[in-house]
Amino acid sequence: MESAPQSSRSEADLQSALEEITAVLERHRVLDLLAHRQETPNRAVVEQLQRRQNLVDMQRRVRALHPADLAFILESLPPADRLLLWKEIDARQAAETLVELSPVPRQSLIEATGRERLVEIVGKLDMHDLAWLSDALPEGVMQAVSDSLESSDRDLLQESIAFPEDSVGHLMTREVGAVRDSDTVAGVLADLRERAQLPAYMDRLFVIDARHILRGAVSLQALILGHPDELVSSRMDKDPVRFQPNDTAVQAARAFERYDLVSAPVVTERGKLLGRLTVDSVMDFVRRSADSDALAMAGLRGGEDLFASVWHSARNRSPWLLVNLITAFVASRFIGLFESTIQQLVALATLMPVVASIGGNTGNQTIALVIRGLAMDQLPRSSTRHLLRKELNVSILSGVMWGGLVGVFAAVLYRHLALGLVMAGAVLLNLVIAAIVGVAVPLSLHGIGRDPAQGSSVLLTFVTDSMGFLLFLGLARLFL
Amino acid sequence: MESAPQSSRSEADLQSALEEITAVLERHRVLDLLAHRQETPNRAVVEQLQRRQNLVDMQRRVRALHPADLAFILESLPPADRLLLWKEIDARQAAETLVELSPVPRQSLIEATGRERLVEIVGKLDMHDLAWLSDALPEGVMQAVSDSLESSDRDLLQESIAFPEDSVGHLMTREVGAVRDSDTVAGVLADLRERAQLPAYMDRLFVIDARHILRGAVSLQALILGHPDELVSSRMDKDPVRFQPNDTAVQAARAFERYDLVSAPVVTERGKLLGRLTVDSVMDFVRRSADSDALAMAGLRGGEDLFASVWHSARNRSPWLLVNLITAFVASRFIGLFESTIQQLVALATLMPVVASIGGNTGNQTIALVIRGLAMDQLPRSSTRHLLRKELNVSILSGVMWGGLVGVFAAVLYRHLALGLVMAGAVLLNLVIAAIVGVAVPLSLHGIGRDPAQGSSVLLTFVTDSMGFLLFLGLARLFL
Repeated sequence: MESAPQSSRSEADLQSALEEITAVLERHRVLDLLAHRQETPNRAVVEQLQRRQNLVDMQRRVRALHPADLAFILESLPPADRLLLWKEIDARQAAETLVELSPVPRQSLIEATGRERLVEIVGKLDMHDLAWLSDALPEGVMQAVSDSLESSDRDLLQESIAFPEDSVGHLMTREVGAVRDSDTVAGVLADLRERAQLPAYMDRLFVIDARHILRGAVSLQALILGHPDELVSSRMDKDPVRFQPNDTAVQAARAFERYDLVSAPVVTERGKLLGRLTVDSVMDFVRRSADSDALAMAGLRGGEDLFASVWHSARNRSPWLLVNLITAFVASRFIGLFESTIQQLVALATLMPVVASIGGNTGNQTIALVIRGLAMDQLPRSSTRHLLRKELNVSILSGVMWGGLVGVFAAVLYRHLALGLVMAGAVLLNLVIAAIVGVAVPLSLHGIGRDPAQGSSVLLTFVTDSMGFLLFLGLARLFL
Repeated sequence: MESAPQSSRSEADLQSALEEITAVLERHRVLDLLAHRQETPNRAVVEQLQRRQNLVDMQRRVRALHPADLAFILESLPPADRLLLWKEIDARQAAETLVELSPVPRQSLIEATGRERLVEIVGKLDMHDLAWLSDALPEGVMQAVSDSLESSDRDLLQESIAFPEDSVGHLMTREVGAVRDSDTVAGVLADLRERAQLPAYMDRLFVIDARHILRGAVSLQALILGHPDELVSSRMDKDPVRFQPNDTAVQAARAFERYDLVSAPVVTERGKLLGRLTVDSVMDFVRRSADSDALAMAGLRGGEDLFASVWHSARNRSPWLLVNLITAFVASRFIGLFESTIQQLVALATLMPVVASIGGNTGNQTIALVIRGLAMDQLPRSSTRHLLRKELNVSILSGVMWGGLVGVFAAVLYRHLALGLVMAGAVLLNLVIAAIVGVAVPLSLHGIGRDPAQGSSVLLTFVTDSMGFLLFLGLARLFL
């Protein structure tokens, strides 16, 4: 009989785990409800037993899960279920899961966990993860855990925490795996064999000299392929891409992508080997920042949990809505200037949102392109003029095309030729303005060191709305 | 004297390379202009020499660049410069660079390259990259290159191409690095040493049995740490995450992130080892799709080159603008229904865009959250009701808050209490509608198998505009 190979894991398995756990939680809630009724004492005992059995089932199912999967499942559950499950996870697994969670759900779980259990959980973290999570943990908990460390570990922790959150220094690990340039291949292999296991993502070892200065990197492959008596320094890459602790994670992420790195050395200004940056922390960073960029463009600061509380959500979305409200009111004042014109020809009120809307949409297309170019560092100063000229030409071409179409439509609808001409002109001019603003706003925000994803769109819509109303109604007053 | 350690590479170096090349191209263009004037024959010769020297400088500079860096520089250059530089790159480097380029600039370069040179360039690609690029290459070129292959390679190529573009089968490489379960550690190491070098991202070898069925994976680390006489099967991970060729790249990307993989086996349904998927192709896929998602939300289909031609850009942006124009016109017809009401109270025309705008903005916040949840597979059916209820509650809370504020403001501005009340009511109702549509539209698009990033926002804005006008003007007709 052909032994059936195990089918491919991950997706399907994960979905079924999620469904199973959701079902267990559902049953738990039903039993909870029944228990509260307590019709007969006898029955209550039975139900109590059922509930306990149910939770035991869940714990068994959960214990087999990878921390990343458990994090995924926690994030997919509504808050009440999430807490219920969280309480059943043992401290070590909880610690590993905490590292994998997205920032907002992580924060909510940390806030909902008692201090004592939190200290127990955090105590299971290794130094690297502890440093990485430090900003998210309450002061008192960090203090308690830090006090329980040996003094050398405590010093390392303090040093890591001192680096800014999205810096290489904050993301790097201290397990460097360094070897001396005077070592032979056989010597290094013998050393490695003495350890039970190598740290994760150790695809290569870093070669240092007597003063701890980085001299190169030698891959495990090179060690395997090398002759035992060779010096590792003759097998090493002499110029590996390296980082300094104050480099930003953005720079590191780009270099990891560009050079397809698995790990890279972190060195001091003088070249001393300090730590190791690995692809998992970098990928994690990329995912988190892609995430928050997309949400930032919609005006959600710092990410938001799908299942955040109503109050928290409303507060999180407020600042941007307030800005939107103010700009919308200001734009509407431009209409207010022309109330007498509108009274004479009400069709203007009907058509003006079209002029504003098409300006906003074309401008947002330009913004999306420019933001992407900026994010990928592909807009050197020498190219911005070229880009602006191109976008202006596109807007004139689109303006003639769409303005013409819209104008004909308006003229036919209201049997009013001049109205059509005014509308066509307003659309064309608004598209040109949208192109200028769409290029200028993200570039300026970037120039003054702000995130162009945050705010460009609001500013643009403000301008295209205001100008849409002003141009259309202004031209109408002049020519109609 | 302390030998100065080399400063960290990448970012700064890359920017300086870009600036240098831009300068060379600038000089080249100036010399070109001068040459066209040709004042004296003597001078023309001198200039000809200068131009050649200039190009030689550039070629030398370019030859030292990593293909990923060269791709980056090409993408950062306006079209004329890009072509000029592209022509100077030798075929092998051009081939490697082609793989690294983003789809749109790649396409434009392929189109601008003569058939003969293109065949030469493409001929330098390895089998994996050739399969990966096959969709982007002209039929004739693929045919010519495929004809020049050995028949076994040609079969492999055909097989890879047959898999859909974003499937694991399309992304995988055939260099599997398989070892037999009956091999010893020493035997495998000896085999490896016979090769000059291992394929990229070979962090582990896949263990197969006599029937080529995947039995596990053994890491290079484990080989290094293992005893020479041990069987590799005793050191292997017996249940590595595996994929099948028809799995989607999205699924693979999630698994790579979740389990921090560097490489993973691809197997047939029966478990036969077929290929190897590596983190570089997966990261590349993630970056490309994050990219096109962001652009899709702004209505740019299939990405757009920053420096695409005006005509190409205008065409690329047209479909979405047409949709926008139609929806804007339809929404404006709702205003048309109330022209007599507006004539009586022109303030309505001034205030109505505010009602529409705040609805659109809150709805887009909801959409951004739901799209992210869907992209991360964190919205099981059981949670959608919970989410809808939450978003409804948020919208009621925000509606009371912002509606109240707006109402007070309108009442004061026009000294008209009833107008303020009507406006407050319209804002509240429009926010509730925005919440329902913001949850329902992306979920429905996802449900019928379409990309929710594409189109959700247009549909939402259409509804919130129409309803904003209809509610505000309708309430006004009823109560004012």
